[in-house]
Amino acid sequence: MNKEEQKESEIPYHFSVRTDLAVEANELLADEQETSEYDGIDVSEEEHLDKKIKLTWVKVSSENGAKALGKPIGNYITLESDAMKENDLETHEEIAKILAQKMGKLVQLKKNAVILVVGLGNWNVTPDALGPKVVSKILVTRHIADSLPEDLEGNVRPVSAIAPGVMGLTGIETVEIVRGVVDRVKPDLVVAIDALAARRTSRINATIQMSDTGVNPGSGVGNRRLGLNEETLGAPIIAIGVPTVVDAATLVNDTMDRMLASMAQQAPKGTEFYQMLINLADEEKYQLIAEILNPYTGNMFVTPKEVDAVIERLAGIIANALNMALHPGIRAENFNRYLDA
Amino acid sequence: MNKEEQKESEIPYHFSVRTDLAVEANELLADEQETSEYDGIDVSEEEHLDKKIKLTWVKVSSENGAKALGKPIGNYITLESDAMKENDLETHEEIAKILAQKMGKLVQLKKNAVILVVGLGNWNVTPDALGPKVVSKILVTRHIADSLPEDLEGNVRPVSAIAPGVMGLTGIETVEIVRGVVDRVKPDLVVAIDALAARRTSRINATIQMSDTGVNPGSGVGNRRLGLNEETLGAPIIAIGVPTVVDAATLVNDTMDRMLASMAQQAPKGTEFYQMLINLADEEKYQLIAEILNPYTGNMFVTPKEVDAVIERLAGIIANALNMALHPGIRAENFNRYLDA
Amino acid sequence: MNKEEQKESEIPYHFSVRTDLAVEANELLADEQETSEYDGIDVSEEEHLDKKIKLTWVKVSSENGAKALGKPIGNYITLESDAMKENDLETHEEIAKILAQKMGKLVQLKKNAVILVVGLGNWNVTPDALGPKVVSKILVTRHIADSLPEDLEGNVRPVSAIAPGVMGLTGIETVEIVRGVVDRVKPDLVVAIDALAARRTSRINATIQMSDTGVNPGSGVGNRRLGLNEETLGAPIIAIGVPTVVDAATLVNDTMDRMLASMAQQAPKGTEFYQMLINLADEEKYQLIAEILNPYTGNMFVTPKEVDAVIERLAGIIANALNMALHPGIRAENFNRYLDA
Amino acid sequence: MNKEEQKESEIPYHFSVRTDLAVEANELLADEQETSEYDGIDVSEEEHLDKKIKLTWVKVSSENGAKALGKPIGNYITLESDAMKENDLETHEEIAKILAQKMGKLVQLKKNAVILVVGLGNWNVTPDALGPKVVSKILVTRHIADSLPEDLEGNVRPVSAIAPGVMGLTGIETVEIVRGVVDRVKPDLVVAIDALAARRTSRINATIQMSDTGVNPGSGVGNRRLGLNEETLGAPIIAIGVPTVVDAATLVNDTMDRMLASMAQQAPKGTEFYQMLINLADEEKYQLIAEILNPYTGNMFVTPKEVDAVIERLAGIIANALNMALHPGIRAENFNRYLDA
Repeated sequence: MNKEEQKESEIPYHFSVRTDLAVEANELLADEQETSEYDGIDVSEEEHLDKKIKLTWVKVSSENGAKALGKPIGNYITLESDAMKENDLETHEEIAKILAQKMGKLVQLKKNAVILVVGLGNWNVTPDALGPKVVSKILVTRHIADSLPEDLEGNVRPVSAIAPGVMGLTGIETVEIVRGVVDRVKPDLVVAIDALAARRTSRINATIQMSDTGVNPGSGVGNRRLGLNEETLGAPIIAIGVPTVVDAATLVNDTMDRMLASMAQQAPKGTEFYQMLINLADEEKYQLIAEILNPYTGNMFVTPKEVDAVIERLAGIIANALNMALHPGIRAENFNRYLDA
Repeated sequence: MNKEEQKESEIPYHFSVRTDLAVEANELLADEQETSEYDGIDVSEEEHLDKKIKLTWVKVSSENGAKALGKPIGNYITLESDAMKENDLETHEEIAKILAQKMGKLVQLKKNAVILVVGLGNWNVTPDALGPKVVSKILVTRHIADSLPEDLEGNVRPVSAIAPGVMGLTGIETVEIVRGVVDRVKPDLVVAIDALAARRTSRINATIQMSDTGVNPGSGVGNRRLGLNEETLGAPIIAIGVPTVVDAATLVNDTMDRMLASMAQQAPKGTEFYQMLINLADEEKYQLIAEILNPYTGNMFVTPKEVDAVIERLAGIIANALNMALHPGIRAENFNRYLDA
Repeated sequence: MNKEEQKESEIPYHFSVRTDLAVEANELLADEQETSEYDGIDVSEEEHLDKKIKLTWVKVSSENGAKALGKPIGNYITLESDAMKENDLETHEEIAKILAQKMGKLVQLKKNAVILVVGLGNWNVTPDALGPKVVSKILVTRHIADSLPEDLEGNVRPVSAIAPGVMGLTGIETVEIVRGVVDRVKPDLVVAIDALAARRTSRINATIQMSDTGVNPGSGVGNRRLGLNEETLGAPIIAIGVPTVVDAATLVNDTMDRMLASMAQQAPKGTEFYQMLINLADEEKYQLIAEILNPYTGNMFVTPKEVDAVIERLAGIIANALNMALHPGIRAENFNRYLDA
Repeated sequence: MNKEEQKESEIPYHFSVRTDLAVEANELLADEQETSEYDGIDVSEEEHLDKKIKLTWVKVSSENGAKALGKPIGNYITLESDAMKENDLETHEEIAKILAQKMGKLVQLKKNAVILVVGLGNWNVTPDALGPKVVSKILVTRHIADSLPEDLEGNVRPVSAIAPGVMGLTGIETVEIVRGVVDRVKPDLVVAIDALAARRTSRINATIQMSDTGVNPGSGVGNRRLGLNEETLGAPIIAIGVPTVVDAATLVNDTMDRMLASMAQQAPKGTEFYQMLINLADEEKYQLIAEILNPYTGNMFVTPKEVDAVIERLAGIIANALNMALHPGIRAENFNRYLDA
């Protein structure tokens, strides 16, 4: 196998195990290819609010691009802002507005479109609780569609929301539960919220990704086994995710790479050993690290200390965005009136 | 309308709003009828563990009995023990064993019967969280049926478990969600856990009711609107409930009745006013009290201070009972090995 | 004992067991005295924000007034607003502002006054968790007084905050712990937050009382045994409380009184029994009810279903008020920047 | 500075930042010194329950030993068992018994000795919540010393317990709060529980350290600034700690060291770069990694996914051990009767 072939065959696998973010997958691809242009992958960027918010739109338009990126054909919109890690309400509101607006570009919703919001993840594991927390903040209206307060009538869509739990607790694949509910609620759109795994610690809790391709298997904190997508659910799906953890082996791998590179620059002489290190196929090195981290790898992850407060805040931003996008007739400042807490 | 007719027409309504317990409905019926024998209702009692545990089996065998009791035809097994309110592990274990054993009398399970446990109620409202808490303690096995540890193989049934949430949070009738999951999991038996409302404060958190009639509408803490039963779910159902609250109006009503009766005994003279009070139809008096308690009635309830600890304990007893009944090949002391916490 | 004497001797006791609110004690006194004027008790009222907020200032100025009211000499400011039970952010902000402003009238704070905020109550019992929750939202600054961000310097007072727990969990009288901390921190002012018991369900979670007399024994949810006041602590104290429960016996008693009165009006004939009932000394009737409610009375209380969300909201209002009052150099909209969540 | 000198001067610092465990500090020392014998440090080991539990007693007897180890003179007893990570009740009970017994060797308690248990750490950050959780499971008796149930009289010591919070939330150094309470309670012994930082992931949640030297500054999850010891508290102290996290930079550093060593063995040729790497002073390398991990280092840590359940379990083991050691007259199986949950 020549080097070209080897690289290609590996791409889908090694990307998918380490990052759920298209924007990171694209960075890795650019590093390997030494070019930021790749056929079938279009990337455009925007900045908002004095550069406090960075938006990257990755559009995967061909099978070739999908294979290179390790992500299905579709759109991946990433919002990055360090303000998500802080208590900066003004920026949070702006992020929610941009998110709501971009959602309108990913999917056209009829006035009476039926929506099902699905909060993936585990209530009891803080970094995996993002989805259930968003669900608890959604303005659900489907059950009161016939008896709405006058000022809401005609201004809200019939929205429902579930937190199906995780397979380890239910014994049922998440997709089965969601499919069962979809069969009865018959939504025009499913919106799934999930906690993701990132490659860079700087992106943890500072990034929101929204895509029209669904939730992919084998990734995230809770490691759902089967994907949630239009095919498996029988309804269009928008997935919204936030990287809340970095897996320990990825952290070690990336930190080490950067440290070795920095040292090789400072001491270029006698870097045969360094050459040997960087010549290691990425996957091999990752496996080696994972073995050393044994027996805890897979169960161990890296998370900031203030994770409880941060997840609460992120859930608020995403729920606000969804409430705005799904109930366009209600002004933002009035949502609180219709919510419990 | 003569008195006979009046009484009969009222029975189903006024019972159902105030107690979920067949054993209490039967007490009320006995009071009104001034007899403990009623056609179509058989009651038998047992005592266990030095009278620490009292078991009452109410069997409703005719439509006439069902109408009188305000409960569907079927079996209602009630376990009462003050030890449930205390940290008396030995008695808790015995209660779990009796519950598991009686469950075997209500339903015959084949060796490979597929089970779905449904934890009704709201995670965020402590006295309504019993169902979800039981679910979190169930040994689920359906997803690992093909890859069981050797010592479990052949000893466990494929059990799954969900906590579907409440309509106020999901926008979906609970029965719709459960039906959706039932359609995909196709269980041979559904076991539903719910928090109930009782009439007597002494029964709060000290009583477990198990029945083969399902969960009835219009009762309980969370006030589910539609029933979960074999007809609506398409699968046989066992319902297990614990009264965790008394509604405030019921408490006032019953306490007042007892107080007035006690005073009338002490001062029998000039009790015209008392006569007037007891002549009030029960429902009328209840409505009057509910109005006075306004605006909070329905949202207010009466609960012991240590409710968090008590609900945790009760969830443990019921989960143990179910784990024993559903996985008969595992010895009680070994369950903990296969559970997370 | 003539009637006059009897009444007087009972006053302090029967009030103190049933309400922590001076405004309710005053209502009861007015009922008994059939006059709203009482020597040594001055009451003035204000309304704010379109009558959405009602403020009552009860000033007790003589020992005679104190005895009649069952409350120590001092000032009792009560804010009442149904908006506290709802998600009405605008009114909440106004309530916090009024509270901060009135606090300035109760106590003069020097620019560098050292403050200790004490959150009384039990983290694990929701209606008793108000104090600890407020503590978690206070902008504490004492430990960073020497290294403040530039924009805070000179604008904040050295504030510290503790949640000492309850005697059942610590084995130590709360006042001992607080006194121990006071001896070391040497605050110029202690602010104590506590959950209270009210007499009327309509006041639950809809009332904030602030007084300069400290926290009195024998009242509240957690039933602290010894008082926290300037004498026991060795520092001036402001107490802020919210009634979060009604005790079950009080609820029954008051509801029954109102029901019987309403029935006596409708059917004035033959009300000898009613006369007998109202002739019962209040305390006797309360004891009778408490006995009937036995064995749960004292441990049982009446609380709204959504208590978790409501306590969170109330803690936010009070913490905002304190942050404004204690750190006057910071504008309200900026507090969030310096807080974690 | 010759190599000997350099090494010695570094020892106290670089150890203290990375591990709170004497047993790990001793391993590092043994590696550097290439001998397991060190003057002033005695190490003895025991095994229990079929080698499921390993006990190491490190006794530091001279200033020289203390300096080398980076730990004060005193006794450090470490219990290691992978069973702590699992739901193995039998082993947990044995661990609690051994812990109680060894505590008796560290300190002689008179029959009526007054005890204060201090749970260090933050309720709201799971891996730091060990101390407060233990406190909530302690059988406190000081407040009921005069009114004990008959079967307890003479069998229990007056025990009190507090969870003082962390400086970031209180604005007060933990030692100040504890000292304030000690001045009032006047205990004969303080027992402090804390979450620690370990160097090896395999030790996380699988190790309990008990020492008679107190809690040292600059270590642990919450990074207390000042030490709690006999000098600062004015009372003897036993410290019990469990490593619940590894800091991210330590994890990377150690994993990298092991990986590079393993690669250097496989490819000994051209290892100049490797030589350069290992010649880096440890501290320098650690700083380099910490910078790369910036901006999250210090706030990021590595923790197992099931951390909530594990901390609960560990708190149970330690609380059982303390209840046994402090109340020797009560048989183990009876503690539950006197505890709330």
